[in-house]
Amino acid sequence: MGSQSNRTKVVMSADKPDDLITSDNPDHPANLIPSLCAKFWTLGWVTGTGGGCSIREDDLVYIAPSGVQKELMKPTDIYVLSLAAQTDPTLRQRTYLRSPPCYKPSQCTPLFLAAFTRRGAGCCIHTHSHWAVLVTLLLEQQQGDSSKVFEINNIEQIKGFGRGMGKTGNLGYHDTLRIPVIENTPHEEDLTEFLEEAMEQYPDTYAVLVRRHGVYVWGDNVHKAKTQCESLDYLFQLAVEMKQLGLPWISQVTPVGPQR
Amino acid sequence: MGSQSNRTKVVMSADKPDDLITSDNPDHPANLIPSLCAKFWTLGWVTGTGGGCSIREDDLVYIAPSGVQKELMKPTDIYVLSLAAQTDPTLRQRTYLRSPPCYKPSQCTPLFLAAFTRRGAGCCIHTHSHWAVLVTLLLEQQQGDSSKVFEINNIEQIKGFGRGMGKTGNLGYHDTLRIPVIENTPHEEDLTEFLEEAMEQYPDTYAVLVRRHGVYVWGDNVHKAKTQCESLDYLFQLAVEMKQLGLPWISQVTPVGPQR
Amino acid sequence: MGSQSNRTKVVMSADKPDDLITSDNPDHPANLIPSLCAKFWTLGWVTGTGGGCSIREDDLVYIAPSGVQKELMKPTDIYVLSLAAQTDPTLRQRTYLRSPPCYKPSQCTPLFLAAFTRRGAGCCIHTHSHWAVLVTLLLEQQQGDSSKVFEINNIEQIKGFGRGMGKTGNLGYHDTLRIPVIENTPHEEDLTEFLEEAMEQYPDTYAVLVRRHGVYVWGDNVHKAKTQCESLDYLFQLAVEMKQLGLPWISQVTPVGPQR
Amino acid sequence: MGSQSNRTKVVMSADKPDDLITSDNPDHPANLIPSLCAKFWTLGWVTGTGGGCSIREDDLVYIAPSGVQKELMKPTDIYVLSLAAQTDPTLRQRTYLRSPPCYKPSQCTPLFLAAFTRRGAGCCIHTHSHWAVLVTLLLEQQQGDSSKVFEINNIEQIKGFGRGMGKTGNLGYHDTLRIPVIENTPHEEDLTEFLEEAMEQYPDTYAVLVRRHGVYVWGDNVHKAKTQCESLDYLFQLAVEMKQLGLPWISQVTPVGPQR
Repeated sequence: MGSQSNRTKVVMSADKPDDLITSDNPDHPANLIPSLCAKFWTLGWVTGTGGGCSIREDDLVYIAPSGVQKELMKPTDIYVLSLAAQTDPTLRQRTYLRSPPCYKPSQCTPLFLAAFTRRGAGCCIHTHSHWAVLVTLLLEQQQGDSSKVFEINNIEQIKGFGRGMGKTGNLGYHDTLRIPVIENTPHEEDLTEFLEEAMEQYPDTYAVLVRRHGVYVWGDNVHKAKTQCESLDYLFQLAVEMKQLGLPWISQVTPVGPQR
Repeated sequence: MGSQSNRTKVVMSADKPDDLITSDNPDHPANLIPSLCAKFWTLGWVTGTGGGCSIREDDLVYIAPSGVQKELMKPTDIYVLSLAAQTDPTLRQRTYLRSPPCYKPSQCTPLFLAAFTRRGAGCCIHTHSHWAVLVTLLLEQQQGDSSKVFEINNIEQIKGFGRGMGKTGNLGYHDTLRIPVIENTPHEEDLTEFLEEAMEQYPDTYAVLVRRHGVYVWGDNVHKAKTQCESLDYLFQLAVEMKQLGLPWISQVTPVGPQR
Repeated sequence: MGSQSNRTKVVMSADKPDDLITSDNPDHPANLIPSLCAKFWTLGWVTGTGGGCSIREDDLVYIAPSGVQKELMKPTDIYVLSLAAQTDPTLRQRTYLRSPPCYKPSQCTPLFLAAFTRRGAGCCIHTHSHWAVLVTLLLEQQQGDSSKVFEINNIEQIKGFGRGMGKTGNLGYHDTLRIPVIENTPHEEDLTEFLEEAMEQYPDTYAVLVRRHGVYVWGDNVHKAKTQCESLDYLFQLAVEMKQLGLPWISQVTPVGPQR
Repeated sequence: MGSQSNRTKVVMSADKPDDLITSDNPDHPANLIPSLCAKFWTLGWVTGTGGGCSIREDDLVYIAPSGVQKELMKPTDIYVLSLAAQTDPTLRQRTYLRSPPCYKPSQCTPLFLAAFTRRGAGCCIHTHSHWAVLVTLLLEQQQGDSSKVFEINNIEQIKGFGRGMGKTGNLGYHDTLRIPVIENTPHEEDLTEFLEEAMEQYPDTYAVLVRRHGVYVWGDNVHKAKTQCESLDYLFQLAVEMKQLGLPWISQVTPVGPQR
């Protein structure tokens, strides 16, 4: 996360807030969030202004506004805030280095911040993918704790996930991927404490499902957050189709090939 | 709706009808309807010239013609009419400020007008989405009045809908979204009285399903009509998939988080 | 169909065959076939070089070659032949006004010609849409003649079809759409006699399903062939989904609204 | 495969490795792999960096790196190696004529090489298509050897496959397409021996399914590999849908038309 010098730079540049979102570089967060969201729209992840995406670079956090058509977003729509300022206990209220007029901040903001502060993530994606929603509905039919975690194993795409923050390498083919499920709340920001609880209970997870709502997925950087989110959506879709065909999500498979 | 001065302006500009559909602004209705319809075509909403879209700005109503390939539409294809003139009881017949040659006016015209005059809508979208059609077919299997309204609750995407014309804010997560279903008629314009009846019976609805046909969705402006239409299609798709998986549309969910 | 003067023109222009496929007009058949096929590829209609499209203008018939990747086709890939020459009994063999080097003529050629000569069609589309294939597989499970025709009624999209060659207007909502099904043959050109038989038996049809293979759809012109093909694919998809949900294709619906 | 003169040329050009991936020709392998992978991404074949594609021209083999977002790949991301050098028994380790910095070679490399050396293929595609995965899961439910091969017959799209390396012509409509299934291994390169075994056991196959993982498909050139891969994915999707509708993959169909 950002050094002290970075934070100083931030406060200064906030005098000209539009500098924070003006760049010719397509990989600048203010350009990347709109292009990612347009792509996510075609995937059905951010239908009807639902879902969103946030990127952190050092201390700066870039967030899409609430209620915007995700495939039409522009760099000038982006909010910018200082991560350090959010966690400063002397501050009472969230302050923005840049706030676009005519918009409201995203209700997802505290959830994105949780991924940045508690996991040091560089990007967090929130989708309303109906595959994610269907998986939580199918789990809801089960009794007890088994309804509170999605589990799948022995599928190649599981290798698309890291072993956990601070661990090296990715999950293996025979590992069981576990994604915790939290219950939905009427107000999105009220999900924060439950998301944080799930993060504590599953210290290696890069994602949390929200029942009847969608999923939050993060990663060290945009590349990892996006590819983990794609891999997860692939697995959710596969899981729903497996259920329709009567195939179980957890299996015993006899290992093949050299065991290293 | 348009003031008297607006109407006067309309009648004057009709001397040069092509001025009504000529603009460099991509958000001008004559440019927006073609670009929206091209997008709707890729979503499967306006397959084979079915479905359509109309935008109202003050007194002016812009409508796509009948029988046109929706992904190929051009601004010069657009009909324009004065809303006030349609409701003037001294007029016998619908008159257009601009009529493209070689086309016929859309049969959806009186249904779009109902959304504009009775709800003050700024945009109305009509889709043949097969998710909408399947939902009406599934409801048809039920007995009595339950076949005449689509109901779903406890899904996050429900928050994509307004509480109703003149009310502030959107539906909540635990609210039940209700979309009335009317029976289809052989001639589309004959749907008008049933659509208006449904509007009266469901004063807060922004949409009406038409059995074995599709859905009409409107909103205060293009942004709201489009995002409500997307959210609804998302819910229709989810509902069909829930039915395939044996999951009920209406559920009892124990509230979580602070109740405000 | 082409007048004698048209035919004369054709034979002359065949001295410079590339003139037949060179035009700046995006609606020229040699430009339109590639752009249509690219669109059909994204719809899953012409996967893996399957399917195709042919356009007739007066006496000239434009056909895509065999075995080409449909989303990559170029105007220079197009074959051109004279329709009159094909039906001239003094000719023994099919001759082309223009043959692109390195390609083979499409095996669909005699089937496209059947639509042009027997129905005066201006365009014929052949898809391998898996919705079409699934409908023929579902019908195959039925006994006797009911396996040889796809029937559906009381769906709005049925209005996307004409009543039949030489008849005015389109089918109504309550009409039953009937599409004959013929059995597949190992060699595509051998389908021709069965396609022609089906055309005779169903004089009003604009399409013929081929069991375990796909569908042929035609129309007076490109617009009509394409929109009828889209409407049909929509109905095939709906029919498969209805079957998955236990809903019948043929229903008794009480008429609503004024009966005219 | 490359002659000695080709190999000499390769070793020389490796002095300026970037020449190997620099060309204005869109059909140059270093340009074609990125454009193909972008297309495959939209088809859901290479989600979340999964899957890949390799092209061989004479002795030169072009391979995408590991862990890259497939729709964003650039020519400068491409690895190049000499095929002859890989099979030279005096060499101990794989050497690359060009290695992009910051990347790791694809774990699929030995599997692609197997298609090039054992079948003389010009292109090999590896997808994680969930249709392929679902087919292997459905087969896993069966007892004994029937779980180790996917079989389907009497579907037109089967004609999209060649009869086998060195044989002329394609499979016929009534032929049974057989694609062997191998079990997945924790490390992708460990699949190589099983893939090669399957190639020996099924000398005519152009594809091998990997249980719970995906499929490898190859062909004499890019055109054939891509169209065979598309046709196969079409058949996998159809097979899953047939299973959902209770329709068998293998059928007895009475031949129709002239038998030649």
